[in-house]
Amino acid sequence: MEIAEKKGKLFIISGPSGTGKGTICKALLERNDIDISVSMTTRTPREGEIHGVSYYFATREEFEQTIAEGGFLEYADVFGNYYGTPKAMVVEKLQQGRDVILEIDVQGAIDAKKVYPESILIFILPPSLKELRARIEGRGTETEEVINLRLSKALEEMSYIDKYDYFVVNDIIDDAIIRTEAIMHAEHGRVVPEDVKYILDKYKEEEKCYTHQ
Amino acid sequence: MEIAEKKGKLFIISGPSGTGKGTICKALLERNDIDISVSMTTRTPREGEIHGVSYYFATREEFEQTIAEGGFLEYADVFGNYYGTPKAMVVEKLQQGRDVILEIDVQGAIDAKKVYPESILIFILPPSLKELRARIEGRGTETEEVINLRLSKALEEMSYIDKYDYFVVNDIIDDAIIRTEAIMHAEHGRVVPEDVKYILDKYKEEEKCYTHQ
Repeated sequence: MEIAEKKGKLFIISGPSGTGKGTICKALLERNDIDISVSMTTRTPREGEIHGVSYYFATREEFEQTIAEGGFLEYADVFGNYYGTPKAMVVEKLQQGRDVILEIDVQGAIDAKKVYPESILIFILPPSLKELRARIEGRGTETEEVINLRLSKALEEMSYIDKYDYFVVNDIIDDAIIRTEAIMHAEHGRVVPEDVKYILDKYKEEEKCYTHQ
Repeated sequence: MEIAEKKGKLFIISGPSGTGKGTICKALLERNDIDISVSMTTRTPREGEIHGVSYYFATREEFEQTIAEGGFLEYADVFGNYYGTPKAMVVEKLQQGRDVILEIDVQGAIDAKKVYPESILIFILPPSLKELRARIEGRGTETEEVINLRLSKALEEMSYIDKYDYFVVNDIIDDAIIRTEAIMHAEHGRVVPEDVKYILDKYKEEEKCYTHQ
């Protein structure tokens, strides 16, 4: 008997920049039978980017029309370009029983949870600020000033951790992936009102058959 | 940095008789660095039973004294013998950072959660009533009447599943063990108010060091 697996679950992986959430999501996709949510954006496609895979590319008009229709789980205007998570596509996959992962920033995660409260929010934490600094410095693309700004932003974002369901410290990447997978696995056994009714009905239905034997 | 691992977690494994919770607990103990809670009882020790390992054996007077002191996570009088989970021993292990598993019946689990709300309740479900019946019949020790009574009791107990945090369907035992372990693993990353404060303080402390460099 397949219990309470009828609807997929939405796992939102987020956390400060530099914590490795992208690497974790990539591994989750490779190792599990799940889907990733594709964002919609108004920015110009870069070479090699494929519509519907990298992003859904849209005009500002189309994007704002979708906003007006309440069609986003979350969206933001970043330096003049819109980025957002189209609700319909995520919901459709969930209805098909597919799990979906969504990699977004902290504000986006909190917004998405408001629109879709069943979302499971996972906060990826750095092992320490020192290590986070080292990782950002390692990229070699940022000035000292920008690095300090990023660290301040990381701390500010971390203050929202109480809005999350889980945290995963990304110290050793393989451990972080396994821990995130454990969360996904465990959540399929979480008792939530809708599932409970479904579970009990299954057994009650069976009992009815017994009685009428 | 070890985050929020300072206190152990109490996992209560329960469910109807015949669902295999004992087998799951045994495997959990063998495969993980965790402790099991030892019950106190007033019944006479059987041959081979060791005080402090099988049970803590106590007189009715001692047991009732512990009840009066609010010293049990849960207790019950079963056919004239008391059985209970001494709170102090569990709490001591948790304080030492040890995870503890406790295998009890449904009523005991619900009582324990009231006394220790941080308990994580896991309900072990049979794959179906038919299979549960087959398992009880397989023991070959029960009359048809008793089997029917057990099945009715199982269904009644299952109606309390909404008091639980998780359910695990024990169809294939190895899968059930792995799923229970995933829950235990995931719960160490669950955001709970006390841990959140601890997590943030760690990073803030570190930031302070940065600022004073």
